[in-house]
Amino acid sequence: MSATELGPGDLAGYRPLREAIATHVAAARAVRCDWRQVIVFSSTQQSLDLAARLLLDPGDSVWMEEPGYPGARAAFTASGARVVPVPVDGMGLSVSAGKTLAPATRLAYVTPSHQFPLGTTLSLARRLELLRWATEHEAWIIEDDYDSEFRYTGRPLASLQGIDGGERVIYAGTFNKIFFPSLRLAFLIVPEALVDSFTAARAATDGAPPTLLQGALADFIASGHLAAHIRRMRELYRSRRDALLDAASEIGRLVALGPADTGLHVVAHLPDGADDRDIARRAHAQGLGAPPLSRYYLGPPSASGLLLGYAHEPPERIRQGIRTLARVLSASRKR
Amino acid sequence: MSATELGPGDLAGYRPLREAIATHVAAARAVRCDWRQVIVFSSTQQSLDLAARLLLDPGDSVWMEEPGYPGARAAFTASGARVVPVPVDGMGLSVSAGKTLAPATRLAYVTPSHQFPLGTTLSLARRLELLRWATEHEAWIIEDDYDSEFRYTGRPLASLQGIDGGERVIYAGTFNKIFFPSLRLAFLIVPEALVDSFTAARAATDGAPPTLLQGALADFIASGHLAAHIRRMRELYRSRRDALLDAASEIGRLVALGPADTGLHVVAHLPDGADDRDIARRAHAQGLGAPPLSRYYLGPPSASGLLLGYAHEPPERIRQGIRTLARVLSASRKR
Repeated sequence: MSATELGPGDLAGYRPLREAIATHVAAARAVRCDWRQVIVFSSTQQSLDLAARLLLDPGDSVWMEEPGYPGARAAFTASGARVVPVPVDGMGLSVSAGKTLAPATRLAYVTPSHQFPLGTTLSLARRLELLRWATEHEAWIIEDDYDSEFRYTGRPLASLQGIDGGERVIYAGTFNKIFFPSLRLAFLIVPEALVDSFTAARAATDGAPPTLLQGALADFIASGHLAAHIRRMRELYRSRRDALLDAASEIGRLVALGPADTGLHVVAHLPDGADDRDIARRAHAQGLGAPPLSRYYLGPPSASGLLLGYAHEPPERIRQGIRTLARVLSASRKR
Repeated sequence: MSATELGPGDLAGYRPLREAIATHVAAARAVRCDWRQVIVFSSTQQSLDLAARLLLDPGDSVWMEEPGYPGARAAFTASGARVVPVPVDGMGLSVSAGKTLAPATRLAYVTPSHQFPLGTTLSLARRLELLRWATEHEAWIIEDDYDSEFRYTGRPLASLQGIDGGERVIYAGTFNKIFFPSLRLAFLIVPEALVDSFTAARAATDGAPPTLLQGALADFIASGHLAAHIRRMRELYRSRRDALLDAASEIGRLVALGPADTGLHVVAHLPDGADDRDIARRAHAQGLGAPPLSRYYLGPPSASGLLLGYAHEPPERIRQGIRTLARVLSASRKR
């Protein structure tokens, strides 16, 4: 490292990494930006926290998908905002429901590629409706594209940011899922009008992540290793997803799986009225970690299910997990 | 690294690093704590920002040394607190002035080892007075010990935290000055009563720094390299400080140097009424970077001076800088 690289560095991040990210997301996600719009963070959580503090005043309302990502909810709540749960259907967040529930909203937080936790993709019609609403109301949209790298079937839709051209959309991405959680590198791509305020806020709240790590990742991306790594991991995760789908098809009378085109987990829907927290506890006691879907609702849960993560388990363990699940579900039906 | 170390890890930091820090500060600064009280951050700025958010409500008042550290001021202001500038004299922060200016204060931010930027040490009497006040008013004290490792003459006073036993004092330390700014590792030692709320707040705002870096630093400390590194750097910085003091003694009629027992910079006081911003600009134009003292005041500056950083310059450059300073000062007196 040079003496300059030992210094505190650019508050918005190390320039070679910002350039590499801009090129990567343009190719992978049709994101349109200049490298100056890329702000490097240590985690999506840190970036959402800063966005909430910059863009929201206490009492402002925020649309959140229901069910949705608790980390985002925590960031918005900490800034004093009022989180408005907006229902998600088979086409993703219902923009019309949002307009009815809270028309004067400053910010909408969405996971369009792979709704967390349900796994649905936000339809193109909804994307356009959401962007039109944001433009008319001068609202901001945070597009959290947390695991879009892992799409197994079908072509991805262009990112909201790419459709919009980056006027109203803040695009959030992370490397902590592509590599490993303790890496601690993530980023936002912010509209040009927000670059200066985000950069200044980094000074008051932290500063950029370690240059050492930023530089290593920049080299990794620029030399083509990132694309190769993603391809390799996608094949690995696909084989694990397939093992899960195969095994689950044999217990199809017990659960209905949600969309599994993308991501690192799938939702196993349970019959209405099933107590997913109780079932999750029983499964856990038998060695199967599967968080209950109801945990991700802010209001009363309208569905019951379990989140089945498959990315970190070899196929044999996955088949074993499904057998455990079948046993727990059969036992609970008999009671 | 093990699979566990690739995971998100403990929100408060990597246990081996927290243990190593607890041992290090006990020996070096008489800090009394259990390793569980050590919370790892990426920077002092990040730790002050979180402390401000947790401990202050909008409108609460905070004592800040005047002049003082702008980064701390930014963190307190961002949380909606009212920053009360409390004058510093030859014994450090004037506790009695603070009591008069804002008796009902929730938090006091101090730099007892080496007041930033003036360089004075908070006297033992003042330390006891400050702790007594905090106990009586149930106020918190943040003790920012940012460069106490570099003490060249005399014995250090025990840290406020050590005198207090850790009831009211939050001790802040950083490795970004001992090593290099882009390392991005710092820590707080918080009272036992605050450990849980700080840890929970880390989840909502970021999480721990990269385990990779935390683990490397833990090994470095545990194997004795940190103590050796500090000894080596202290000798290097001492020789640079001595070069500065020698060179400055030759222009003693132009400036009066502040305390230089500790730290990485010294204040060159200018005659009353000298415009330090103008002089800093002229020095900068001649290649000497020396921030004006007046920049560090929240209210009207009561002194005029320049901050001379010496740690990163070899002696020849330091002597050259002092010659430049003498030229600029002589020219400005003639005008």
